[in-house]
Amino acid sequence: MSISIYRGTVVYAAERDKLAAFPGANILVEDGFVKNVLKNLPEELAELPVQDYGNALIIPAFSDLHIHASQYAQRGIGMDKLLFDWLMDYTFPQETKFADLSYAKMVYDTLVADLIRHGTFHASIFTTIHYEASDYLFEKLAERGLYAYTGVVNMDCNSPEYLCETTENSLRNTERFLREHQGARTVQPILTPRFAPTCSETLIQGLGKLAKKYACGVQTHLVESIAEAAWTKDLFPGYRCEAAIYEQAGLLEYGPSVFAHVIFPTGEDIEILKKTKSISVHCPDATANIIAGIMPADALGKRELPIALGTDIGAGPGTAVYRQVSRAVQLSKLKAFFQPEGNGQLSFARAFYMATKEGGSIFDRVGSLEPGYRFNALVLDGLEDDFSPLTPEEKLERFCYGGDDRNIVARYLDGKLINP
Amino acid sequence: MSISIYRGTVVYAAERDKLAAFPGANILVEDGFVKNVLKNLPEELAELPVQDYGNALIIPAFSDLHIHASQYAQRGIGMDKLLFDWLMDYTFPQETKFADLSYAKMVYDTLVADLIRHGTFHASIFTTIHYEASDYLFEKLAERGLYAYTGVVNMDCNSPEYLCETTENSLRNTERFLREHQGARTVQPILTPRFAPTCSETLIQGLGKLAKKYACGVQTHLVESIAEAAWTKDLFPGYRCEAAIYEQAGLLEYGPSVFAHVIFPTGEDIEILKKTKSISVHCPDATANIIAGIMPADALGKRELPIALGTDIGAGPGTAVYRQVSRAVQLSKLKAFFQPEGNGQLSFARAFYMATKEGGSIFDRVGSLEPGYRFNALVLDGLEDDFSPLTPEEKLERFCYGGDDRNIVARYLDGKLINP
Repeated sequence: MSISIYRGTVVYAAERDKLAAFPGANILVEDGFVKNVLKNLPEELAELPVQDYGNALIIPAFSDLHIHASQYAQRGIGMDKLLFDWLMDYTFPQETKFADLSYAKMVYDTLVADLIRHGTFHASIFTTIHYEASDYLFEKLAERGLYAYTGVVNMDCNSPEYLCETTENSLRNTERFLREHQGARTVQPILTPRFAPTCSETLIQGLGKLAKKYACGVQTHLVESIAEAAWTKDLFPGYRCEAAIYEQAGLLEYGPSVFAHVIFPTGEDIEILKKTKSISVHCPDATANIIAGIMPADALGKRELPIALGTDIGAGPGTAVYRQVSRAVQLSKLKAFFQPEGNGQLSFARAFYMATKEGGSIFDRVGSLEPGYRFNALVLDGLEDDFSPLTPEEKLERFCYGGDDRNIVARYLDGKLINP
Repeated sequence: MSISIYRGTVVYAAERDKLAAFPGANILVEDGFVKNVLKNLPEELAELPVQDYGNALIIPAFSDLHIHASQYAQRGIGMDKLLFDWLMDYTFPQETKFADLSYAKMVYDTLVADLIRHGTFHASIFTTIHYEASDYLFEKLAERGLYAYTGVVNMDCNSPEYLCETTENSLRNTERFLREHQGARTVQPILTPRFAPTCSETLIQGLGKLAKKYACGVQTHLVESIAEAAWTKDLFPGYRCEAAIYEQAGLLEYGPSVFAHVIFPTGEDIEILKKTKSISVHCPDATANIIAGIMPADALGKRELPIALGTDIGAGPGTAVYRQVSRAVQLSKLKAFFQPEGNGQLSFARAFYMATKEGGSIFDRVGSLEPGYRFNALVLDGLEDDFSPLTPEEKLERFCYGGDDRNIVARYLDGKLINP
């Protein structure tokens, strides 16, 4: 029996609108999993050494379900633009650079370190259409032991010539990626059609066959802007809604199904997401920046759709998921103000739940510190001024609104201390 | 003649929608003022030592025209609330603590260091109703040489009993503050009625007399929420708009007149602001957080109203004005999406101009690096990845979206290097 004991203020969200806080608690970790959170240690454990973090918070590591790894290189620039201009002027030219593996290595090494620095240990990640670069990222994530889904991106139409594959090449590339990355590791391959406008019907149907053959999930963008949704409707006239394109191709059967943005869903989209247990990813800063849209997160939550958070690098400004917690609360207030019907405010606890346990739900026992969960955890300190003590919940809130990686004083992944 | 020379990429906004960028430039500073920005040094200066910052940016220090100094202690908490609950549950109880000078000293010392850390050298600052604490902040700001307006807050009605003065005491306190803080210093006293609902007509008229006697300006909140505007209309039925309350009392004649938020102005408010050369302060994060409102900054700009930026600590998350630059752009897109009529998007250059030169316009020659301006400047570095070079404008944009105080590697105030 290998038990470690950490002392501090344990805070997590086991359910949607509620934080659980245990000041001065002992968290018992056995073989990388949380065994228990106890106020007092039983006598048989009294002799074991305790790593005492004092008044610091111990919280679950974050889950970021929408990252474009290649766009890390363009974070925080071109933010004057809106979606299509931003894609053409910044994003597509940036993505072509990943044909060069040595370039990809530099960007992906920096990104992975940055994810760890900001406490994101669980992620769903787009790469580009390039096999070698995507393979490199997969292996890098696995080497660091992060929990992730990632896959080569599919684009076979309506894309700049320099970033467009034939349908055949796209499917071959993808199948190779699935085949080469099978196995019981923390990282798993996932199908990654960019979004409906850049994928032919043939391609999407081909991906559906691969989903079945390899029993794998899918990540893509869904109804992210009015223009995108209208264009998709034109391109796929035979489908009753955008989600149906993926459903009818058999892409939503093996899970996880991860849909970024979901800002303008129809009732039919929502029915499909619900029936297929798909998870929607709210990327507050990113969609405000380049779409000027806000996901109706509260309304979708009332329909009992699971919703995770995402940074959506590079439309989002950085890898800090905790900042998106605060932004989700803030933008839910604006959404409720401008479009009151059906839209309410998210609680802080809800947004934190989305960023940890709900986003973690597509992996194996991550995103909470309940017994049975992996000890994927962060220790947060320096959030309180001497002159003004805060409750544990307030410390966590201040971290999400104004803290940064300097407040993360220790990081545990599967029970082991790690560094960026 | 005392000339210093700094080399780097000089960037500033001399006009509304345009950044001026000078890579590899020499900035000549004489007696604390910018003398010139030159690509090549003339022969007679070739012998002088140069402080070479390489590829780093040299930009003007920031101007934050709306800060509640006392609320620094409550930043980043209670953000689930909206205005009136937030005031009653967090803000008013917090402000009472400033009756204790030793408490005030701790908070204000920390705040002033934090302003310097984040490069805010020009500010308009609310304190509380407490004389000694307000006096302490004034002296602290002056001791550090920051450019600021600050004054004791007036509240004589519709306030919790524990934070309400008599009209007579409020006026006496204020006059004492004005009298004791006369003189040619970088900090100047300013009248600070909290907002119309907490000030009686008698009080506001009394403040008008003090404005005339001491030739001083005023800072307050204006039409910040629908509920506040409606309440003010009820309380002051004899006025054609909220701005008229201050105008008719003679408060807008001596300048500066600094109005925070201005989210729901009537045409008549706008006319008064324009006529009196008042400056409006856009606090994007803060008003999104606790009002769920966004200033129509682009629309007011089209009416040629000057607009500054503010962090509005503690409704805003921190003292970083540069982050409000990015937020102003982002929220202008949302405003234009949800209320297209008359509302357009702010350019990044515009938002940066608001945060520097326009906010600096209420002080003496600060907020730009044009010749004749004070060398109140920041040196920014570490914004570029090795694998992805950026233009000067992109570096500045990335700083505002995702940078932090670690990127500020040197700070100059009146030509002298300072530290937090």
